[in-house]
Amino acid sequence: MNDSDLDLRTIADRLSMKAALPFARGSSALFALFQAFANRHGTGEVILPALCCESVALAAMYAGLKPRFADVCGDTLCMTPETVGQLVNDSTRAVVIVHLFGVDANAAAFRELRRANPTVAFVEDIAHAVGGRTLCGKLLGSEMDYTLLSFAESKIIAGDGGILLFGERALDPDDVRSIIPASAPTKPPVVLAMNLRNVVHSLADLWRTSNDLELVTAFESLTPYFRDLIICSGGISDTEAVSDGFENLEDVRMIRYANYSLYRAGVQATHAKVVPLREGSTCWRCPVLFSTPQRARDTTTKLRSAGLHASNHYFPLNLLIGGEPKPIAEDSSSRIVNLWVEPRLPRNEIDAAIAIINRS
Amino acid sequence: MNDSDLDLRTIADRLSMKAALPFARGSSALFALFQAFANRHGTGEVILPALCCESVALAAMYAGLKPRFADVCGDTLCMTPETVGQLVNDSTRAVVIVHLFGVDANAAAFRELRRANPTVAFVEDIAHAVGGRTLCGKLLGSEMDYTLLSFAESKIIAGDGGILLFGERALDPDDVRSIIPASAPTKPPVVLAMNLRNVVHSLADLWRTSNDLELVTAFESLTPYFRDLIICSGGISDTEAVSDGFENLEDVRMIRYANYSLYRAGVQATHAKVVPLREGSTCWRCPVLFSTPQRARDTTTKLRSAGLHASNHYFPLNLLIGGEPKPIAEDSSSRIVNLWVEPRLPRNEIDAAIAIINRS
Repeated sequence: MNDSDLDLRTIADRLSMKAALPFARGSSALFALFQAFANRHGTGEVILPALCCESVALAAMYAGLKPRFADVCGDTLCMTPETVGQLVNDSTRAVVIVHLFGVDANAAAFRELRRANPTVAFVEDIAHAVGGRTLCGKLLGSEMDYTLLSFAESKIIAGDGGILLFGERALDPDDVRSIIPASAPTKPPVVLAMNLRNVVHSLADLWRTSNDLELVTAFESLTPYFRDLIICSGGISDTEAVSDGFENLEDVRMIRYANYSLYRAGVQATHAKVVPLREGSTCWRCPVLFSTPQRARDTTTKLRSAGLHASNHYFPLNLLIGGEPKPIAEDSSSRIVNLWVEPRLPRNEIDAAIAIINRS
Repeated sequence: MNDSDLDLRTIADRLSMKAALPFARGSSALFALFQAFANRHGTGEVILPALCCESVALAAMYAGLKPRFADVCGDTLCMTPETVGQLVNDSTRAVVIVHLFGVDANAAAFRELRRANPTVAFVEDIAHAVGGRTLCGKLLGSEMDYTLLSFAESKIIAGDGGILLFGERALDPDDVRSIIPASAPTKPPVVLAMNLRNVVHSLADLWRTSNDLELVTAFESLTPYFRDLIICSGGISDTEAVSDGFENLEDVRMIRYANYSLYRAGVQATHAKVVPLREGSTCWRCPVLFSTPQRARDTTTKLRSAGLHASNHYFPLNLLIGGEPKPIAEDSSSRIVNLWVEPRLPRNEIDAAIAIINRS
């Protein structure tokens, strides 16, 4: 199969976007978009949340743009028009709004900022949240100039690669399509992705132990080696998985949200709070905020010892890549533990996790 | 229990050494020794094998000494009088001979070099090899000025901490004992040890993928954060485990060597060679050298998929810490896979590993 087997038109239409372009990776799409903006308006900055996947920041850096990290709101773990507004200036080329873990980042609230900055690309990243709806019932990802979808076994929609959707105010897709050099690797190197994850996790662990740690120099010296991971040519290989993912999206969304709701109802502890997701959301993982980093760490260990999935490697990108302190991101990321909500997750595993958290 | 429950006198006597000093960690002993030499002779260099635990190099660096890495011999994976001799100069303060994985590094061959350099501390590190014997039937660790023992669940002798033995030409133990500041943490922080291992493993993995990688800057910027791991005050906590370890050493040695011998006899492949250990050796892990790095990686993956232990994270320290190329260490470390020989390892796991290697 190839990209032509994927109904890109329908995918764009669903989100009221005018065009869709497939890429070998979600971050390749961002790289191409950022580079197109850098070519058009000159080098400058990309604003993204301090809590976000490092590949978004790398895409900006490889396009010659400087990542500027906006702090998040402690309730949603997403950035706000206020934290972004402080960073917007004449050098701003793009703003990437990430619906982290499935939480609605409320893109509509950025309308005013977007209107005031017509040459800035406003992007919604819905990799974690595809299928979710806003307060007004609109699908997430239909509000801004560009919407990024990405697919992987570990995401909401399985498969590989990503799709960039183009809205009314967007560039001509041909101007973005032509950016990735044909000489770039066609397949994202799996080993390199694992390496990046391992390096970032090991630095995050070190940061958890030594709070006065300066990690920027270490990561900066490694940055050149992940280019082939971010700048990939070609499109989506497993279009069948992606098609199936869209077809089953509403069923998957409901099961994920039901699993999330079990954690939400079950976790009754003063030391642990499930981050609220609205009815109608897609949940990627269920984020639990613990009262202290120590409790988050200890509970992760207990959950894993019981054979349950739990992830606590969240890590403010400003500490890895540089920039001013982001107090809320730094504080909350050290207290997040994410729980799995995958459709095939056995009910008893959810109950076991809840029991461990309530006792911890 | 405390150190006084440990018969240090007997441990020293066994190896014909004149004194024994316990430390909270093996690397704390090295730090104290290096610092004592730096105090006496001024800053300078420590020569150690390019294939070695990074904590030996860190101990030197924290004592203000520069690690110089000697290349290894492709047959033994240990350094030789020739590779060390090239590096010895007026700044040399210490030479650390490591009996890697249990292979006899032939300390006797360094006698001439030692004689010619009376102000240099010659140290044997026998953490992997304690209980093993030389070609002449002498116990390893009785040849040089100092011998380092260290204890951990994953080593030959369980327990914690380390012991530095002092030979004829050694400093007064009191001059080394007084080095570690009382303000240093008394327990080596377990999390920090895991962090160091994870950082080094993630950098090693990155090196395996991107051969032109420059890792020195990254590791250098992280070096300050591992001080508390290397410079620990106090002594051995679980002296009972260490006493038991010495008591059962010959039995454990024989079982480990028997397990090693099964691999040695069983691996019959042109693409994989078990590194030879002499009869009478203690084997820490059974090192297998594959014909190519790719084969070593692929076989590690196959062994792990079958639920078998295998480790391939060996990594030349010159690439992490700096220094001239060490071609043999760089080549061989990328092709080593280590297999477990623990006394309780089931025979069928050994047979299964052999079958996978022969088929790989």
